[in-house]
Amino acid sequence: MPNRFGKLFQITTWGESHGPAVGVVIDGCPPRLPITAAEIQVELDRRRPGQSDLVTPRAEADQVEILAGVFEGRTTGAPISLLVRNTDARPGAYDEMRDKFRPSHADYTYSAKYGIRDHRGGGRSSARETVGRVAAGAIAKKILSVGASAVRGTPVEIRAWLTSVHDIALPAGAVESFPSLAEVEATPVRCPHLATAEKMIERIKAARAAGDSVGGVIECRVRGVPPGLGEPVFDRLEADLAKAMLSLPATKGFEIGSGFAGTLLRGSEHNDAFVPRAGGVGTATNRSGGVQGGISNGEEIVFRVAFKPTATIMQPQQTVDIHSAATVLTGRGRHDACVVPRAVPIVEAMTALVLVDHWLRNAAQNQVFKF
Amino acid sequence: MPNRFGKLFQITTWGESHGPAVGVVIDGCPPRLPITAAEIQVELDRRRPGQSDLVTPRAEADQVEILAGVFEGRTTGAPISLLVRNTDARPGAYDEMRDKFRPSHADYTYSAKYGIRDHRGGGRSSARETVGRVAAGAIAKKILSVGASAVRGTPVEIRAWLTSVHDIALPAGAVESFPSLAEVEATPVRCPHLATAEKMIERIKAARAAGDSVGGVIECRVRGVPPGLGEPVFDRLEADLAKAMLSLPATKGFEIGSGFAGTLLRGSEHNDAFVPRAGGVGTATNRSGGVQGGISNGEEIVFRVAFKPTATIMQPQQTVDIHSAATVLTGRGRHDACVVPRAVPIVEAMTALVLVDHWLRNAAQNQVFKF
Amino acid sequence: MPNRFGKLFQITTWGESHGPAVGVVIDGCPPRLPITAAEIQVELDRRRPGQSDLVTPRAEADQVEILAGVFEGRTTGAPISLLVRNTDARPGAYDEMRDKFRPSHADYTYSAKYGIRDHRGGGRSSARETVGRVAAGAIAKKILSVGASAVRGTPVEIRAWLTSVHDIALPAGAVESFPSLAEVEATPVRCPHLATAEKMIERIKAARAAGDSVGGVIECRVRGVPPGLGEPVFDRLEADLAKAMLSLPATKGFEIGSGFAGTLLRGSEHNDAFVPRAGGVGTATNRSGGVQGGISNGEEIVFRVAFKPTATIMQPQQTVDIHSAATVLTGRGRHDACVVPRAVPIVEAMTALVLVDHWLRNAAQNQVFKF
Amino acid sequence: MPNRFGKLFQITTWGESHGPAVGVVIDGCPPRLPITAAEIQVELDRRRPGQSDLVTPRAEADQVEILAGVFEGRTTGAPISLLVRNTDARPGAYDEMRDKFRPSHADYTYSAKYGIRDHRGGGRSSARETVGRVAAGAIAKKILSVGASAVRGTPVEIRAWLTSVHDIALPAGAVESFPSLAEVEATPVRCPHLATAEKMIERIKAARAAGDSVGGVIECRVRGVPPGLGEPVFDRLEADLAKAMLSLPATKGFEIGSGFAGTLLRGSEHNDAFVPRAGGVGTATNRSGGVQGGISNGEEIVFRVAFKPTATIMQPQQTVDIHSAATVLTGRGRHDACVVPRAVPIVEAMTALVLVDHWLRNAAQNQVFKF
Repeated sequence: MPNRFGKLFQITTWGESHGPAVGVVIDGCPPRLPITAAEIQVELDRRRPGQSDLVTPRAEADQVEILAGVFEGRTTGAPISLLVRNTDARPGAYDEMRDKFRPSHADYTYSAKYGIRDHRGGGRSSARETVGRVAAGAIAKKILSVGASAVRGTPVEIRAWLTSVHDIALPAGAVESFPSLAEVEATPVRCPHLATAEKMIERIKAARAAGDSVGGVIECRVRGVPPGLGEPVFDRLEADLAKAMLSLPATKGFEIGSGFAGTLLRGSEHNDAFVPRAGGVGTATNRSGGVQGGISNGEEIVFRVAFKPTATIMQPQQTVDIHSAATVLTGRGRHDACVVPRAVPIVEAMTALVLVDHWLRNAAQNQVFKF
Repeated sequence: MPNRFGKLFQITTWGESHGPAVGVVIDGCPPRLPITAAEIQVELDRRRPGQSDLVTPRAEADQVEILAGVFEGRTTGAPISLLVRNTDARPGAYDEMRDKFRPSHADYTYSAKYGIRDHRGGGRSSARETVGRVAAGAIAKKILSVGASAVRGTPVEIRAWLTSVHDIALPAGAVESFPSLAEVEATPVRCPHLATAEKMIERIKAARAAGDSVGGVIECRVRGVPPGLGEPVFDRLEADLAKAMLSLPATKGFEIGSGFAGTLLRGSEHNDAFVPRAGGVGTATNRSGGVQGGISNGEEIVFRVAFKPTATIMQPQQTVDIHSAATVLTGRGRHDACVVPRAVPIVEAMTALVLVDHWLRNAAQNQVFKF
Repeated sequence: MPNRFGKLFQITTWGESHGPAVGVVIDGCPPRLPITAAEIQVELDRRRPGQSDLVTPRAEADQVEILAGVFEGRTTGAPISLLVRNTDARPGAYDEMRDKFRPSHADYTYSAKYGIRDHRGGGRSSARETVGRVAAGAIAKKILSVGASAVRGTPVEIRAWLTSVHDIALPAGAVESFPSLAEVEATPVRCPHLATAEKMIERIKAARAAGDSVGGVIECRVRGVPPGLGEPVFDRLEADLAKAMLSLPATKGFEIGSGFAGTLLRGSEHNDAFVPRAGGVGTATNRSGGVQGGISNGEEIVFRVAFKPTATIMQPQQTVDIHSAATVLTGRGRHDACVVPRAVPIVEAMTALVLVDHWLRNAAQNQVFKF
Repeated sequence: MPNRFGKLFQITTWGESHGPAVGVVIDGCPPRLPITAAEIQVELDRRRPGQSDLVTPRAEADQVEILAGVFEGRTTGAPISLLVRNTDARPGAYDEMRDKFRPSHADYTYSAKYGIRDHRGGGRSSARETVGRVAAGAIAKKILSVGASAVRGTPVEIRAWLTSVHDIALPAGAVESFPSLAEVEATPVRCPHLATAEKMIERIKAARAAGDSVGGVIECRVRGVPPGLGEPVFDRLEADLAKAMLSLPATKGFEIGSGFAGTLLRGSEHNDAFVPRAGGVGTATNRSGGVQGGISNGEEIVFRVAFKPTATIMQPQQTVDIHSAATVLTGRGRHDACVVPRAVPIVEAMTALVLVDHWLRNAAQNQVFKF
């Protein structure tokens, strides 16, 4: 079960960075959803390396193949199996990693845990594993778009973008309204504020030139979520979002709504007053981030995720080898000086997976039998 | 399953704030563990209301009863059922809440989700639910203490404390070493730095006097954790800790190791160099927070949790009633002007539950069969 | 998780035969279901000992208390906690069992597995554990009755009865139509064919007089089940029914539809021809037992369960003690010479739990989003 | 989750009969197990069609490809992904099935459940799905062989065979001792008693000549199982075996130990007396079938599974079409007149999966911490 996510819309990812392929099996997808490999490919292309001169030059088409679960263009209710072949595997490039642990990577902990390690490009610990998440997330997004529209008359839309790279941050109020996908995709750093985006790009280029790396923060907002998603105790919507985000490589923090800054407010400042709204109830402010008591309240869901600077750097680093002897490692192989822009579609994918899962769970308990 | 936590050491909590009782069932506890009601009571007493003049005056003994799973002072492998009667229930005090939604509480979302709501003191959404978590956590702590000592020669110790209340924060470097339990428990705010603790107390008293509330941040550290706990992809140790923490009432954020501040460092500054250490491998710094690639590396686990200011305040607030009409609500009933000190044992309990669960999971996959 | 059953309508039972209490927590019950302790009590009374001179004289009221999850007569969506105190516990009566393993009981295997054993009346292995199943099953039955009627205009009805005790079996064709509850409850052996019931009673009395015991077979039929319940591969409806039944104490076999006897037919004799039926499709015969490809087809679900003779007998038996030395044990304590009549409400309860769970699962995948 | 089996050694199968491929993902496999595609292939070849003139002539190599989870000949702890391409898919052969429901197949129930159906060869409901089970089972068998030997000094051995085909049954006492694999594989019907095997072959040939089909019964025995596997309440070893077997296509019944015939014995005849045995405790007889109180007792595990006659027959049958109109269907496409011989390796595979899963579960709860 370690490689499984979700309770009702359940995915299992598999595959190593330099093995034959990576993939995902989706179990529990509603039937009759129209879906094509091309629609999945759109999202895979967004996370694919080699999209700009900012990111890793690994040149792979990442072409997805649907092996099961889709018949004549629609899902059948059977498990969906998606496969992406690794076409640019260069295992030999990683020989040094067989014997040395890369700092702040998973090399040591995998060895300690399993007593064996596929060292090639990080093996299972590589961010290449997220190919399966993004592919599954594309299907979840389709459900949230087409399915939610059919049920509620409005789609669920998920939008993520960079709010900071290193110490380059969006100015306060720079992104007030829900940005369009085009605005986010306008630059390779996926920051919808162009002036800031340019500075981010410079910062990343400077880090790369220095053989160094930088991290950043992604904000994600979701609109169109009906009230009622999320479970009251352990499986709160924010708890499952936090888990989803902290399950991504390189993440160090998660906050929803007011987040850590909210601790600086008093209750009288922080509370979101309820106000009448067409068709129900809304809140005057949204420090709750769209979730109250673990359950969506119909407002925009707003959260942020912190990504540390990429652990792979092109500088000599102190470390130990597999015999616990001190040694020096020089970064090699492909790497991004900043992974955060490529993490945007992955954050969106995980968000979509959480929401579809909770939508199904909520419906199962609360909408099947009406007493 | 919404009220269940853990995969192998699994707890299910139940109970409402003003129902007859609250409790927990623990399924999967190792047999032969010596445990008494008195040991569980110690932890319950730490979270109990009415411990100081800082916190809610609800006067309940919160006496735990072991109904099953323990025989002649030892666990049997059967499910452990723990019960705490609600003795100070005053349902009548909450009549206004039947018709009005309290801002930033779960009243509206529960109504939207279930179409029915036990309004008395928040019902299931009350922090009283955490009684079950703390009781189960006491058993998990005992396992980590006695069991880990027997297996590894060293116990796992979990220590949490307040690093800030409102804008009163621990000075940098004020808590360098692992504080003792006595140091944490020395003041009712559970901040081991006395000068800061005093300021925190003043701030909480001032908030209460104003009918207002404040939040804060808890830091938790764990030492003695063996390398290898945590699963590589979705069930990373930090992901499950994040979920555990965000499942607590009033939490808005989680960060591990360097956290959000880590995004301000370069990779060359952030990476934790590996160094030889007696009996294996250590790191020179700990920005990873004790987890790499989702798996514990043997260093101290370090994380922080943000708690918003208590939603219940003693001031009139704009809100709507159950007919979506605007109205005003004045806070009533028991409440804490700051819940964060009482959350300390709850954070520790959830941490213990995550660690025991992952310890069992890791052992099941990696230590049963040795190839 | 060992004490948990169900995926969406999930129960966890707890409690030992001679501990303070037994109980169950139900997680995932739909909200707003009207339910009272009295309704649950009806089913508990059916399984209660001391109902006739045929069964164990243990004199307990088995009075159920609802501790959580029900508010003003309706479920709230919160976990439902049900408690039954053990009032007639006589632990001293079982002192011999502390040192000796009862043949064909769980004494030895519990010791081997856990290294500790609550020997009093079998502890956790006692059929007293089924109190929790029956209590939860009463709620599941209510859902199938009221909820299914509201959704489909027809209730789901579950009826079980004895088809044999020892070698006294119902004559072929004796129970053609779906028997009424009154017909089943007419005799203490719960066989709706009176002539056979009388013979069964005599056989049980004779066994008891000889200090011996007998087993038997229960048949269970369900009508009103919509097509579509059950999952196609591992969680087939018959697979989950088989698991539910083999999870009951003393069961040795399960068969659905034609069962073992069906292996004596040719395909041309065994196949159920489809026929047009008002509102859809039916089958001319029902050798499938209401399930095809793991999924209900709308016909009556029909299955049988074999119960071995009670292991506790009032005769000296060869066995070993906890030091593996040969010894002799004489049965003592309360016991039934035939447990099968009391198993009837338990079989029904487990059937109800399986059906509600699959109903919710089917709805979650197939009825929330319609593409 | 519908396509997932197991709690700790967890498999998810995917694929349709005439889609591009079938496969399985195994999550939770212990690391460092030596395994090759060739070892998996051995078991796949046992279930493969076209092995004799008795079974379906579908001519596929069923060549397995390991896509992930194995590095330099050993498992790594990462999920294992196994793929088998469908090379002899002939979708056109099934055009009639698009519009007509085959009697006693899953065509109607899949349509009713999902509103869509891959009709080609039964799609997901085809026994071709069991390719994934057998491939995963091969790995489980290797663990039980090599791993159990290392831990306990003795391997776990699983052996299944036919005890009847139609009304041709093994004579009483014909298979007393644990048969060798060679004895079972000696004939295409996999009955280790040659005289009976010959009669079975004749019966199957006769059925095929008549365009008809027959079923039968498989017995499975397991030796070398340590005491302690199985959970006491819902996840009893026999309950999980029953579920595993009833999850196989065409199964109608399961019995363990004395089974249905055990209901004809008295308690004094049925009980298995405990006897001292080298290294512990044994039983003089084995009517329990190796399981007591849901937990293995160290004796041979013995159970039987009933398979109905193949639903596909080469005779005209009454049925309805997708518009609920009466029609006639003539069987076409490949089929086995008796699937039971090919089910032998599948029964063994499922047994291995259940045992490995319970072994890990038992160890996690009972052997990690020793109090």
